[in-house]
Amino acid sequence: MSGKQKKPWCGRFSEPTAKTVEDFTSSIHFDKRLYRYDIEGSIAHARMLCRQGIISKQDERIIVKGLTDILHQIEKRHFTFRPEDEDIHMAVERKLIEKTGAAGGKLHAGRSRNDQVSLDVRMYLRDEIAQIVELVSRLKASLVDLAVKEEKTILPGYTHLQKAQPVLLAHYLLAYWEMLDRDEERLRECHKRVNVMPLGAAALAGTALPIDRHYVARLLKFPEISHNSMDAVSDRDFVVEFVFVASLLMMHMSRFCEDLVIWSTDEFKFVEISDAFTTGSSIMPQKKNPDVAELIRGKTGRVYGDLVALLTVMKGLPMTYNRDLQEDKEALFDSVDTVKECVRMLSEMVGHLKFDREKMFKGASGGFSTATDVAEYLVMKGVPFREAHKVVGRLVAYSIEKRRDMADLTLTEFRRFHRSFKEDIYANLKIEQAVYSKKSLGGTSKKNVFLRIKNIRGRRK
Amino acid sequence: MSGKQKKPWCGRFSEPTAKTVEDFTSSIHFDKRLYRYDIEGSIAHARMLCRQGIISKQDERIIVKGLTDILHQIEKRHFTFRPEDEDIHMAVERKLIEKTGAAGGKLHAGRSRNDQVSLDVRMYLRDEIAQIVELVSRLKASLVDLAVKEEKTILPGYTHLQKAQPVLLAHYLLAYWEMLDRDEERLRECHKRVNVMPLGAAALAGTALPIDRHYVARLLKFPEISHNSMDAVSDRDFVVEFVFVASLLMMHMSRFCEDLVIWSTDEFKFVEISDAFTTGSSIMPQKKNPDVAELIRGKTGRVYGDLVALLTVMKGLPMTYNRDLQEDKEALFDSVDTVKECVRMLSEMVGHLKFDREKMFKGASGGFSTATDVAEYLVMKGVPFREAHKVVGRLVAYSIEKRRDMADLTLTEFRRFHRSFKEDIYANLKIEQAVYSKKSLGGTSKKNVFLRIKNIRGRRK
Amino acid sequence: MSGKQKKPWCGRFSEPTAKTVEDFTSSIHFDKRLYRYDIEGSIAHARMLCRQGIISKQDERIIVKGLTDILHQIEKRHFTFRPEDEDIHMAVERKLIEKTGAAGGKLHAGRSRNDQVSLDVRMYLRDEIAQIVELVSRLKASLVDLAVKEEKTILPGYTHLQKAQPVLLAHYLLAYWEMLDRDEERLRECHKRVNVMPLGAAALAGTALPIDRHYVARLLKFPEISHNSMDAVSDRDFVVEFVFVASLLMMHMSRFCEDLVIWSTDEFKFVEISDAFTTGSSIMPQKKNPDVAELIRGKTGRVYGDLVALLTVMKGLPMTYNRDLQEDKEALFDSVDTVKECVRMLSEMVGHLKFDREKMFKGASGGFSTATDVAEYLVMKGVPFREAHKVVGRLVAYSIEKRRDMADLTLTEFRRFHRSFKEDIYANLKIEQAVYSKKSLGGTSKKNVFLRIKNIRGRRK
Amino acid sequence: MSGKQKKPWCGRFSEPTAKTVEDFTSSIHFDKRLYRYDIEGSIAHARMLCRQGIISKQDERIIVKGLTDILHQIEKRHFTFRPEDEDIHMAVERKLIEKTGAAGGKLHAGRSRNDQVSLDVRMYLRDEIAQIVELVSRLKASLVDLAVKEEKTILPGYTHLQKAQPVLLAHYLLAYWEMLDRDEERLRECHKRVNVMPLGAAALAGTALPIDRHYVARLLKFPEISHNSMDAVSDRDFVVEFVFVASLLMMHMSRFCEDLVIWSTDEFKFVEISDAFTTGSSIMPQKKNPDVAELIRGKTGRVYGDLVALLTVMKGLPMTYNRDLQEDKEALFDSVDTVKECVRMLSEMVGHLKFDREKMFKGASGGFSTATDVAEYLVMKGVPFREAHKVVGRLVAYSIEKRRDMADLTLTEFRRFHRSFKEDIYANLKIEQAVYSKKSLGGTSKKNVFLRIKNIRGRRK
Repeated sequence: MSGKQKKPWCGRFSEPTAKTVEDFTSSIHFDKRLYRYDIEGSIAHARMLCRQGIISKQDERIIVKGLTDILHQIEKRHFTFRPEDEDIHMAVERKLIEKTGAAGGKLHAGRSRNDQVSLDVRMYLRDEIAQIVELVSRLKASLVDLAVKEEKTILPGYTHLQKAQPVLLAHYLLAYWEMLDRDEERLRECHKRVNVMPLGAAALAGTALPIDRHYVARLLKFPEISHNSMDAVSDRDFVVEFVFVASLLMMHMSRFCEDLVIWSTDEFKFVEISDAFTTGSSIMPQKKNPDVAELIRGKTGRVYGDLVALLTVMKGLPMTYNRDLQEDKEALFDSVDTVKECVRMLSEMVGHLKFDREKMFKGASGGFSTATDVAEYLVMKGVPFREAHKVVGRLVAYSIEKRRDMADLTLTEFRRFHRSFKEDIYANLKIEQAVYSKKSLGGTSKKNVFLRIKNIRGRRK
Repeated sequence: MSGKQKKPWCGRFSEPTAKTVEDFTSSIHFDKRLYRYDIEGSIAHARMLCRQGIISKQDERIIVKGLTDILHQIEKRHFTFRPEDEDIHMAVERKLIEKTGAAGGKLHAGRSRNDQVSLDVRMYLRDEIAQIVELVSRLKASLVDLAVKEEKTILPGYTHLQKAQPVLLAHYLLAYWEMLDRDEERLRECHKRVNVMPLGAAALAGTALPIDRHYVARLLKFPEISHNSMDAVSDRDFVVEFVFVASLLMMHMSRFCEDLVIWSTDEFKFVEISDAFTTGSSIMPQKKNPDVAELIRGKTGRVYGDLVALLTVMKGLPMTYNRDLQEDKEALFDSVDTVKECVRMLSEMVGHLKFDREKMFKGASGGFSTATDVAEYLVMKGVPFREAHKVVGRLVAYSIEKRRDMADLTLTEFRRFHRSFKEDIYANLKIEQAVYSKKSLGGTSKKNVFLRIKNIRGRRK
Repeated sequence: MSGKQKKPWCGRFSEPTAKTVEDFTSSIHFDKRLYRYDIEGSIAHARMLCRQGIISKQDERIIVKGLTDILHQIEKRHFTFRPEDEDIHMAVERKLIEKTGAAGGKLHAGRSRNDQVSLDVRMYLRDEIAQIVELVSRLKASLVDLAVKEEKTILPGYTHLQKAQPVLLAHYLLAYWEMLDRDEERLRECHKRVNVMPLGAAALAGTALPIDRHYVARLLKFPEISHNSMDAVSDRDFVVEFVFVASLLMMHMSRFCEDLVIWSTDEFKFVEISDAFTTGSSIMPQKKNPDVAELIRGKTGRVYGDLVALLTVMKGLPMTYNRDLQEDKEALFDSVDTVKECVRMLSEMVGHLKFDREKMFKGASGGFSTATDVAEYLVMKGVPFREAHKVVGRLVAYSIEKRRDMADLTLTEFRRFHRSFKEDIYANLKIEQAVYSKKSLGGTSKKNVFLRIKNIRGRRK
Repeated sequence: MSGKQKKPWCGRFSEPTAKTVEDFTSSIHFDKRLYRYDIEGSIAHARMLCRQGIISKQDERIIVKGLTDILHQIEKRHFTFRPEDEDIHMAVERKLIEKTGAAGGKLHAGRSRNDQVSLDVRMYLRDEIAQIVELVSRLKASLVDLAVKEEKTILPGYTHLQKAQPVLLAHYLLAYWEMLDRDEERLRECHKRVNVMPLGAAALAGTALPIDRHYVARLLKFPEISHNSMDAVSDRDFVVEFVFVASLLMMHMSRFCEDLVIWSTDEFKFVEISDAFTTGSSIMPQKKNPDVAELIRGKTGRVYGDLVALLTVMKGLPMTYNRDLQEDKEALFDSVDTVKECVRMLSEMVGHLKFDREKMFKGASGGFSTATDVAEYLVMKGVPFREAHKVVGRLVAYSIEKRRDMADLTLTEFRRFHRSFKEDIYANLKIEQAVYSKKSLGGTSKKNVFLRIKNIRGRRK
């Protein structure tokens, strides 16, 4: 246990840390993934210390070289992380001091692990958010491409999972585009709050050394610095906010996947997910399971769980830094990984969907899905909506009783329910007409839908 | 049960709704609070229907008058809500038809309860967010005022609830200002996404009637309209996002309250919350309990719970509207009410805090809280940070052993630990100096703190 | 505000509670529903005080009479609850003292609101759990009755929402019986932990008065008393545990409701929920929405939310009683109410389901749902399972390609895939046979299913 | 990608699984930890298949030998898990077939991965629960030992973190014993529901092969078998219930840790956690941070998060098995690992606490902590409690004003507040007497506390 006597903070301790405590409190097994950011941050810190005359040119050179070497070692997997390193910051600094002696020992001036870990996580997360934004953009683009490809496909729109009105598949797909677009907007806003440079807050109070925080921010490409050192070291808003934004994104995907699972059933058969994206059963050779869609749906729970974990950790925590905050990273990493792979998989899967246009169209035809159009027909003839609504209700009941489609009723029959029915009612009973007619902005008419696509595509340029 | 035969959607139903089902599915007991928004929305809808020639001038006048009367009736509590009204939309429309007959029956043309409820909630929520932003601003202002009042107060800054370094109370208070400022920013961004006009999406597909959505948006002061009708009726992002933003806000307040509870103990005695904001014990006459702080902390759980409720409801829900969505309102209302009263109470309580400046200062003096300053002193003398750190560690251990404060050590003793110590070390051991010296931007020096206050106050103008 | 000077704990307070604080901290608007338990508990307490010689016979009589009168007043709604009463305990005691003077002032000896509220909630919850157990039993019985009624109905069993193997509807229904049976078991175990008498813990330390806790327990029919006064006043395990048990129960119902929603679609059409349990659309007259099923599914989120609220409140709370604990009641009440009405509604709805047996049987026939049986046929002929599995996989692929059912293949075709196929293979391709053959215990054969029903019904007696 | 053509379920698939899909859906990287249970389960299954004549003696021997070899290979880390193995079941079976050819191919008869994974997780979890019960028992025993060691230590009992009444430290510690005892009870009850044998449910319907489930149960030491095959493959109650029980256990520990963190402050100084269980600061050499306590408190969030993840996954999932269920394992493993290490660490830490008895006693003396005793003194003299309460309230206010302790008031002063005060009042003002007098069962008197310890220790034998 003698090795532990070397702990950088052990000056006044008379007893070494218990081995079990070391293992329990160590975060090196998960925070090592921040190594690149930790080193980049340290290099910027060293450059600033030198520029401000806190360390010499010579020391700067030695430190930067040492850190760069460590970076390469880690990347080539020549670096051994040891549990007694506690965390990535200590692991890198320990190695640096081994390599450079006194010079390395000068690096930690004017900072603390409290601000350093915040810096690392912020650098990591802004990169990841940028990647996720890119992945979401790609998924959005796939949806638009698919919408264009399926420009004429009509399917039943559902409310309460009951057929309501026929809609364009393109319209349906673009509904997800809208959700994802909000997700992207939220991601960008969250990114802005992540992209704030905390270094210089030191443990909690700032430092007496003449550091230049703006210079570090410039080197590390942060547009802003934090304004309060106590807030800087105790704030995890940016982590929790990201995981929330990821939760909404997962939720949207879970809804799409739910629909895909339902549409893949033998009963709906609206879509076939290609073999590459389904798996079989070990006992039922005929099965073709929409596993990817199910897993994305299931993984939503995982990200929700991460969110609750983080909110729980933060609740009622006294100021400023408390060790509880160490629990932020695994939840964050898990959410980042999950959301990235889910968006990526869904994007790919979207390209492997084969819609059964005929089945969809047939589905849209049944279930009196143009009843609303009949009601609106009457409204246009001056019948009060509520009356029109009741008339159509009775027509539906009559048709069900007679086991006939509304389109098969004679005009005489129609007029028995209301005198305003004319020959032109038959046009309104057609599925295509029902879709075509929904010209209110945002409605499902092809004109609207393609106007939206044009706007979307214009925006992207 | 005959009353139920009048359900507006009962045309094809052969059996009335069971009374128990009516009670179970009815939302009138909680959504009635949306009445004003429902009526305003309906008036705008009626004006538009008239302008577009869908209803006559005459009908418009009757409808608008009828709705205005109903508004007054509700406000004067002359309106009886009945469970069989199902929801606020039906209650208002039922009354309107009772009052106006056929004219009233024309109102629901070109819309559905699906887009109507989204409209109502959006109108409600944008108002509430505006109020919450105002309340948060006021709380932020109280913190700044208090910071100014306590401009010289020094207290121990804590990490791990262990005394770390002395800081200004003003600096501590401003840390909360920063958190609340982010909350306000998130509220504003959320408001932007709430402030989108969904009406015209109708049930899910839009309408064939020649409505003008932009006109309705203008009347109701919405800067934007929704772009996809299916998304419009199934989207509750704006509700969930608000409750998340409220959760973070509650979390911040819970941390402040935790500190207040701890600071109110007999052991800390940093603060006394005035009698008006504490309560007594039914059995222990000497108690003075920080109930308000405790309740705010506790109510954080409530808002977290609302968030989980909403996320759960939305997960894996097929498109588009499903009755599950009705569960959005109570959670939202609860969060709105909770966060409003908590911010308000905290604002008030901030004005009723009496800090024990002497106790705080004394607290800041103990526990070797200037040890870091000694380390930085050595760094400025050219000692590598890690070496300086160890030297100070040993000094602390030595002082503890000798049961003396570091400030009481002789220079000879200091120099036994490192030759770089000079007479000027004693200045660095002073609490005031330790605070004064933290001049790094965002640090706790008075200069920094008041620079920030100046910026904040400048911004507010 | 002078009225507040009368607060029972105001002895040492120099300033009255702010009106806003009074409103904020008051719980009377929700905890008044505990009135009966509060009064019963007080009566038992008074009887014990008298028996132990702490109060006189005379005082006991006055107190019991006073409390009984208050009970009647509340029940006849002749009692006005005032916000300044803070909570139900204070409201009752205030009234008692108004009525009885000094005698009433003697009641609170040897107890505190801390143990009193725990007593009230425990009495309330044990009653509610008993009711919920009864409701769950009834739901279980309805499922068994329905299973018996549908004894021959065969439907496709699904995995991944893909048709897997035909099963008996009775078997499906009994799967829910099993879930509910576990729920009932958990409820009973939770009840045991609720049913513990906390009174006598006083504020946190017990009392010096010579009380008899066992006597109070006997009067109030508690089989056990709490063993540690500090635990007694700070423990809310029994509340959280109940809400968790309720969460699982809701989860089970949400799965059943999900199936009902899917089965009610036009595409599946396995079930029709009667008009009494569905509602219509305000704009689409043909709709018949499974609202009750959707709402039960949605309300699952609500109970999950209550659980998270409670867990959050309790996390990291210092010992013993803290005002945060006041937040336990609304979440508990909400979960109790929600779960009761959901179980009740589902029970009723189960009696209003009309299954389309023909549609179900036809559904079970398609999709190669007897493929496993073919594989097991080969295994019984000595073919290794993995080989059999592959053979059947190829048979399925072949049939799909030829657009034929497996049952329509000739024996020669079968034998082209494996020589072990004999004439008897055709029997194994029949749906009824597939169900009949699953004789492994717990399997779907009618014999098994009705054996289980017999056991269940036997158990109930 | 040719390797994938060997998937055991690939018979009818014309396209191989995409590599990305394989990685996305594979669970081998986390479920491999179930290997021992998977192999034990398979051995029992093979023995049963042989006993029932479904496979030959010879095949049984080959299979059991093959599986045993694989077990050793894995344990010696000579086994390479490949992502394309999908999961532990496939990995083991693939290897078995490589080793034994046709014999190995016979193993999967009469079962499916759906029941197999349930079996594995149940075997794993019952073992883990048994270990956790053992760990909790040990923690409980440590608390009792500590209570005995601190038998005379008096500290202030807190409500609202305000000093309320003096209590024995032993009494405080036993309050946690009670909580942990309930946790243990819940763990045992959960264990009972875990300990149910699901194998034989096959995919969802049972099997036509003449298997003997009771025999398998006997071999694997399960006292019960599942009664419904559909429930068996879709049930994850036992997982969710365990994680909930773990959540409550974490919550209890979080409260203890919160107290330890507060008691470790310089202001309280009730306890010193030994160096072995604290860590230092990288920048503040004087710090001694209660990291272990903080981390346990923080990790509570993690387990809560796992619970929410699981509840979310299960909500509204259609019957029976869906791939979403694969998400159960990581959350479960994380909770098991977390709770085990936290209980273990807390147990160890309890042995490393040094209480400052003097500081505690002094703390108990201040703050008028015997005020209740004075009130009860008056009650025993016949003063109505409410009057007594007010009298003492005024006495407290008077003493505060005079800056004197109540014990320092003269009898004349006492009698100015109430004539019932006699010379014997002074005895009641002593801290020791206040503790001694709380003889109500469950109260803090030493007699009670040691009676409880005797019962506890008796129970353990």
